[in-house]
Parts: sequence; C-alpha cells; structure tokens
Amino acid sequence: MSKATAYDSLVERQHDIALIGSTQAVLGWDQETQMPAGAIATRSAQLGQLTRIAHSMQTDPALGELIERAASDTTNPDHSCNITYWQRDWERATRLPEDLAVALTEASSVAMAAWQQARESDSFEDFAPHLETLVTLKRREAEAMGWPADGEAWDGLSDAFDPGMTAASVSAVFAPLRSALVELRAAVADQPPVDTTCLNELPDARQNRAVQALMSRMGFDFDSGVMATSTHPFCTNLGHGDVRMTMRKDEESLLTALGSSMHECGHALYEQGLPADFAGQPRGAYNGLSVHESQSRLWENHVGRSQAFWQWYTDEISCEFGLSGLDAESLYRAVNRTEAGLIRVEADQATYDLHIMVRFELERALLNGDLAPQDLPDAWNAQYRDYLGITPDSNATGCLQDIHWSMGAMGYFPTYTLGNLYAAQFFDAAKRALPSLDADIGSGNFTPLLDWLRREIHSHGRLYDPGALCERVTGAPLSAEPMLAHLRRLHDVT
Amino acid sequence: MSKATAYDSLVERQHDIALIGSTQAVLGWDQETQMPAGAIATRSAQLGQLTRIAHSMQTDPALGELIERAASDTTNPDHSCNITYWQRDWERATRLPEDLAVALTEASSVAMAAWQQARESDSFEDFAPHLETLVTLKRREAEAMGWPADGEAWDGLSDAFDPGMTAASVSAVFAPLRSALVELRAAVADQPPVDTTCLNELPDARQNRAVQALMSRMGFDFDSGVMATSTHPFCTNLGHGDVRMTMRKDEESLLTALGSSMHECGHALYEQGLPADFAGQPRGAYNGLSVHESQSRLWENHVGRSQAFWQWYTDEISCEFGLSGLDAESLYRAVNRTEAGLIRVEADQATYDLHIMVRFELERALLNGDLAPQDLPDAWNAQYRDYLGITPDSNATGCLQDIHWSMGAMGYFPTYTLGNLYAAQFFDAAKRALPSLDADIGSGNFTPLLDWLRREIHSHGRLYDPGALCERVTGAPLSAEPMLAHLRRLHDVT
Repeated sequence: MSKATAYDSLVERQHDIALIGSTQAVLGWDQETQMPAGAIATRSAQLGQLTRIAHSMQTDPALGELIERAASDTTNPDHSCNITYWQRDWERATRLPEDLAVALTEASSVAMAAWQQARESDSFEDFAPHLETLVTLKRREAEAMGWPADGEAWDGLSDAFDPGMTAASVSAVFAPLRSALVELRAAVADQPPVDTTCLNELPDARQNRAVQALMSRMGFDFDSGVMATSTHPFCTNLGHGDVRMTMRKDEESLLTALGSSMHECGHALYEQGLPADFAGQPRGAYNGLSVHESQSRLWENHVGRSQAFWQWYTDEISCEFGLSGLDAESLYRAVNRTEAGLIRVEADQATYDLHIMVRFELERALLNGDLAPQDLPDAWNAQYRDYLGITPDSNATGCLQDIHWSMGAMGYFPTYTLGNLYAAQFFDAAKRALPSLDADIGSGNFTPLLDWLRREIHSHGRLYDPGALCERVTGAPLSAEPMLAHLRRLHDVT
Repeated sequence: MSKATAYDSLVERQHDIALIGSTQAVLGWDQETQMPAGAIATRSAQLGQLTRIAHSMQTDPALGELIERAASDTTNPDHSCNITYWQRDWERATRLPEDLAVALTEASSVAMAAWQQARESDSFEDFAPHLETLVTLKRREAEAMGWPADGEAWDGLSDAFDPGMTAASVSAVFAPLRSALVELRAAVADQPPVDTTCLNELPDARQNRAVQALMSRMGFDFDSGVMATSTHPFCTNLGHGDVRMTMRKDEESLLTALGSSMHECGHALYEQGLPADFAGQPRGAYNGLSVHESQSRLWENHVGRSQAFWQWYTDEISCEFGLSGLDAESLYRAVNRTEAGLIRVEADQATYDLHIMVRFELERALLNGDLAPQDLPDAWNAQYRDYLGITPDSNATGCLQDIHWSMGAMGYFPTYTLGNLYAAQFFDAAKRALPSLDADIGSGNFTPLLDWLRREIHSHGRLYDPGALCERVTGAPLSAEPMLAHLRRLHDVT
C-alpha cells in the first residue's frame, strides 16, 4: 500500500468516526429542543451506545498504524494539519478506558436532564449527586489523560478544549485582568444609571421575526441551518450543511433575545464558513473553543453593541415594532450599561469575565478535591461576594445557572474570557483592514466584515494553532490590552 | 451456558439492535420536522452508517446460534413471542445483502427530500429517477426475501408489514369491498350537499391549542411524547418514553388538523399503551401495521366522527373559539359528508378505501415491471377516473401526494384498509363491552374506552397474531361487514 493510500484510508475511517459524532450531535440537539422528559433513559442509552461504537473505532490498532504511516508523508500542509489532530485524538481515545467513556456520556446525559429540573425547582440537592458522579468521572478522565508534573487535574481536561491551555497559564492572564476590571468597575460606579425601559415589553412572536431577519442580514444560511429556542442558548454543527442554533427568549426584553442570537449566530457563521472541502476533518473544523468564542463575541459585542449598529438598527426596530421616538444614542447607552449581576449570560462586557473567574476557581477546587460538591453553593456565593460584590438569592440564579458542568464540560469556562480577548484583538485588525467598516455596520451591511472573517479566520480551520492564527491576523500575540482599551472607550474611562 | 442465559444474551443483543433503530427514528423525526434542506446528504450518510452497523449486528452468526438455543426453551409464552419474531427478523436480515440494505436506506433518505420538493413544485420528472431507483432496489429486496410459488414480487415486501399478507389475499378482500363501496356511493349520491362553512377560518395558533387540549383529554402523555407539525402527518416511537406525532395544519379548516391529530393520536396511544416491561422487544411492540392503523381509525372515525363526540365537542369549540350558534347535529353531518376527492388523507370513510385500491394496483404493477415509473402519472389518473370518477388536476394532487413510496414503503398501503376493517370490528366489540360508551364519549370522557383498548389490545403487543387477536377481542374472524354496516348507518342507507 502506498503512502497516499494510507492517508486515503485514514480519511475514510475518520469520516466514519466523525459521522457517529454528528449523529450524537443530532441526539443532543433533539434532547435540548424537543425531547420529552420521559425519554431521558432511552436517550442516555442511545448516546452511550454510539460512544461505545465510536470509541472502538477510535482505538482500533489498525487506525493507529494508519496514522503512523500517513504521518511520514508531510508534504501537504492540509494533510499534516489533519494528521496532527487525528494523532492527538488517537492518543486521547486510547488513554480513555471504554467503560469510562461510556459512563461519562451516560452520566452527563442524565445529569443534564437533572440539572434542568433542579434549576427549575431551585433544588441543588437534586443535582448534587449527579455533580458528585461527574466530578469523580472527570477526575478519572484527567488522571487517564495525565498532566504536566507542575500542573494539576484541571490541565488534564482543559487541553481538549484549547490545546496547551493549563490552569497556570490561565491564572497568569486572569490575575492582572481581574485587577484591571475591578479598577474599571470602580471608575464607572458613579456614573448615572441608564434607562432601558424603551426596550421592554416587546411581544414574543415578533421577537422571533425580528431576530430571524437580523440573522439573515448577518449572513446565516437558513438553507443549511435552523434556529430554535432553548433554556440555555447554544450552537451545534450536526454535520455538513446542518448548523443549528438556539436563542433564549425573555418576553420582557428584546435585549436577551438579541444578544443571545447575535452571539450564537457568530458561532454559526464560523461553522458555516469553515472550508466545505474538509468537512468532518480537523482542517475543516473550528480552531479550539477560544477562537470559536471570539467569533460569537465579536458579533455580539463589537458589532451588536456598537454606536454604528444602533444608528442602523434603531430605525429597523422602530419600523418592525411600530415604535416612534426611539433614540439611537440612548439605545446604544442602554445596551452597554454595566452593573454587577448574578447571571453570566446576561452580564455586560465589563463584568462578564469576573463570572468566568468564579467558575474557573471552583472547578479547579472540585477537581483537586479541595471543594466537596455539596459545598458548591456556599463556595459559589462567597466568590460572588468577593469578585462581584453581590450574593445570589437562590441556587437557580447561583451555581445552577449554567449547563456546562452537567454536560461534563469542566476545564472549559476560561475559553469564554480568552474568546473575549481574541474578539477585541481581531476586531481591531478588521477595522484597520476595512476603513469603511463603521459606515458599513451603520448601514446594516455586514458582508464586508463576514467576508474578512471568512478569509482571515474561518477558511483556515485548524491550519494554524490559535496563537499563530492571532499573530497572522493581528500582527501580535494575544493580549488583554485591546479588550481593556475597548471597555475604557465604551465607558469614557481614561 | 444454560438455556436461560442464552435467552438473556439474546435479549441483550436484540436490545442493542433496537437501540440503533430508535436512534434512526430520531434522525427520521428530525429530518421530517426540523432539518434544513442542505443537510440531506449528511443525514443520508448518518442513516446509512447506522443501517450498516445494525445489519452487521443482525447478521452476526453468533446471534443466529443464540436464537436457535433460546428457541428450544418455549415454556414462557412471552419469550416464545419474542423468539418467533427475532427468528423472522434474523431470516430477513441474513437474506438481505448488506450493500442492498445500505442502498435502500440512503436512496430513500434522498428520495424523501426529492419527493418533498417535487410535490411542492408539482414536478413529477424531478421525482421519477428516484422512484425508478427505489423500484429497482425494492424489486431486488423482494427477490432476496422470496415469495410463494403462486405469488408475485409484492408478496416479498408486504410480509414485513403484516405477516402473511399477500397480493392474492388482499385482492380477495378488496374485490367485494370495492363493489359494496361503489354501491354505497351510488346510494348516497342524491343526498343534498352538506354545508361545512361553520368550521372554516379558524386561526392557526388557536388550532394548535385546541388540538393539544383534545389530545390530553384522549389520554396522550405529553411527559413521554411530543406533538409537532409536518407536511404528511405521522407518528413515530423514538424508544421507550418517547412517542412523537405530527399534525397537518390547514388554516382554513379545523377539520384537517382535528382529523389528522385524532388519527395520529390513536397511533400514539397504542405506542404509549404497549407493555413497558417488554419495551424494545416484539412482545412489547405493535402487532403489525393493520392493527396499528385500526387504533388510529377507531379514534379518528368511530370516536371523532360520532354523534356523541359532536354533542360534547360542539360546546368545547364554541367556548374555545368564542363562537355561538354552532349546532351539534350540523357539525356531525358536516364531518361525515362524503364526496369523491383527490387527496387520500382528506378522503371520507366511504371513499377512502378506493384510494387505497388505486395505490395497491399500481405498486403491484411497478414491482412486476408492468408499469414503468415514468408512466405512473397517466396510470394513476386513469385509475382515479375508474374508481373515483375524478381526474387529478396536477401530480401534486395526484401521484405525488403520498410520502410512502419515497420512503421505500411498498406493499404497505392495504394495511390502511385492513386497519379500517379491524377498527369497525373492534369498536363494535367495545360497544358491547361498555354499555355506557356512547354516554362517556358524549361527555368527553375517553378513559373507559382507552382502558378497554389497553387491556384488550395494547397490553398484548405481538403475543397473538392479528387474526387471533381479532377473534379473541371480537369473537369472530376479520370481516368487512362491521365497517359496511357502520357506513350504511352513517349515511342512512339500508
């Protein structure tokens, strides 16, 4: 068999593995958007079965041999990119015992449903045993993956979300960022409160229509995608030609729907912009969760909360909802008001990353065994007092607010903050490259920005690692300065 | 290994096979209700992969050995029931070449999407090549399955839907039934036309609410089920605790939504009433498609079109829609008016089975090679002239109206008519067993009827074959007389 044939066979096997993953994504989408509560045991068994099948495909010794043989042919950079990631997947899969892989899939499927109910009834004690099971399993997973000698359990998990990310590297970024954000909050604390009543009481059905129109305008292809609603908004790729997102609706304010939709649409545009020729391969996949988040944050915050956007969108919603007397500048101020709140997904740009820091510290402690799962509510509330100066009035608005841990996603939260930093730095580069960007946004023309993102970021898939991509696109390594400069401008703080 | 162990191992393997099937059902549900058009190639590949996996599980020689060993222990009737059907499945699976199984799954997934578009744009030529592929593949399937020496290709397919059903046995029932139905139509032809305007122009959103309320009242468990909308209404079991149905909405008439919903809910109540202890096993599965259809028809026609039902429901909808002056007797007459129409799913009870006869004759001819797929529209239209006295004005309202053939479901249509016959005969038995049935329905109390159906029919799964079940429940073999008597009563024909 020639080297080219080894690579081709490898592509075929990896395609089969990716296809199982895409079927699991359909099951996950259905579970979040339509599945009745009584189906949870069946759904968990379905997901567990597919995990078992995929795991046996992923750990087939013949696959390992193919990867080795294909790796010796590194002249094609697209192939190299794929082989590098497949090699990494192979190592992770062979390190993960099959029973643990199945247990993790089944436990998180059950825990997600339990979390949803526990959040609705504000009963942490109903979720606690599931959290305990998950922490035990995730700790076992981290041990199977291993971590650097000077590292900790968290590092054994975080690598899967953003290669190379460790608790130490995150802490190094978070410590100074925290000081700067606390300083910023102090500086804006005395500014007068912003009136946001103009955005309230817009009816449900018309929110849907307004949001769909905006998503189309942003460039979302509804022939290859779907938008629905769910408790916790998300975006998922169900395979080539099928990108789905959900929005979270709040009948009292258009802002919740708008912010969550532009955010998820940013994710969706990234997925729809990945190179179709490499669909289902690393070369055609998103470049880690931080870069993924940069795309959602760029649209949500740098487009959707800009003065230019509101100059255009104020007329749009005035017309859509038959409102008169709306003022673009007031709306721009309203959508950018900053106030420490309890809910991460509703947090403004100046406080959001403090929410992330709470979660990062707590999941480290859970995994290290420094925090017992049943003590999570107290620890959570103490951190909110320390970092944000407020105390949750319930677990539903406290430690039960996020779906992530119930999904087994631990070692994940910091990618949100890294995504915020990338977003600011990418958007600065876009402004330099597109002198008319502000005017384009101000007339509801998002095509030049989307074209730039597709060319500079989406089309590359995983060809460059996130750090290298950042230098290539922006001319500099990742830094917190662009985001801090953006926040200071936004709040008139020098 | 003891005999008991062989049976237990068999149960475990069959559970895994059924679980793959339930995952395919989720993919199918999503395809019909949410999937964007651009995802069809991916979806087809996902379904094909699972068919391949299931087929290799179904044809594993070790499974065949387990069945043989378990079959020698026939003391437990529940086990016997399972083993009989698993034996049959095993034979079908080992006769079906894997490449043909995969080709059928993939071709029907693509053809379903093509059918949907062809129907929308009324372009038979866009569907014709898919139909040709399917007929070729189904003919190959029939050949692989084999048929009786005095039979034909159709018999090789129909057995999968209703064991033992052949073209000859169906023809024997259909010929006299056709004469009786034609006679009935002649007898009612001179009756004055019925005014149905009272049911028109009810808005979309409120239809949904009214229908959901009725489904709850009928006994549908929304904690273990979902209702959505689709072009062609259907019901599907996605695994234990997850029964889903769709309704077809027509904004101009509540009748379309009501009829299709009561029909699908009849199917859904059957699925929800199957014995949970045997979920995923033949002992806990529906008893062939004719009995399944009997449950939908019983609710749709014998409950939903009865005088008693309209005595109750007239007040319900008057209240729901704020209407006054509705008259129960007029509504009862309106929902039972008979007129030959083009659309099977909108046909009344007196003409419905003539639609089935057209399809039965044409699919026999397609499979025997007596009719070329591209000649289907002409043949279809000729049959409609012969049987129903009308000619379709387009293929969208002619041979493109049904999803079945695009799904590869050939040898299936007669189960609708057999279902109608079972429904009438079962309902007569229910009336004998429940003297207050009419009064119960007349007060919107469906619990006694549902309890009777659960006890007499649902709880048995496949323990008795359909003919034996019919004798057990009604005291007589299946006959067309109860349905003909019902239709004659309905239309005051002696």
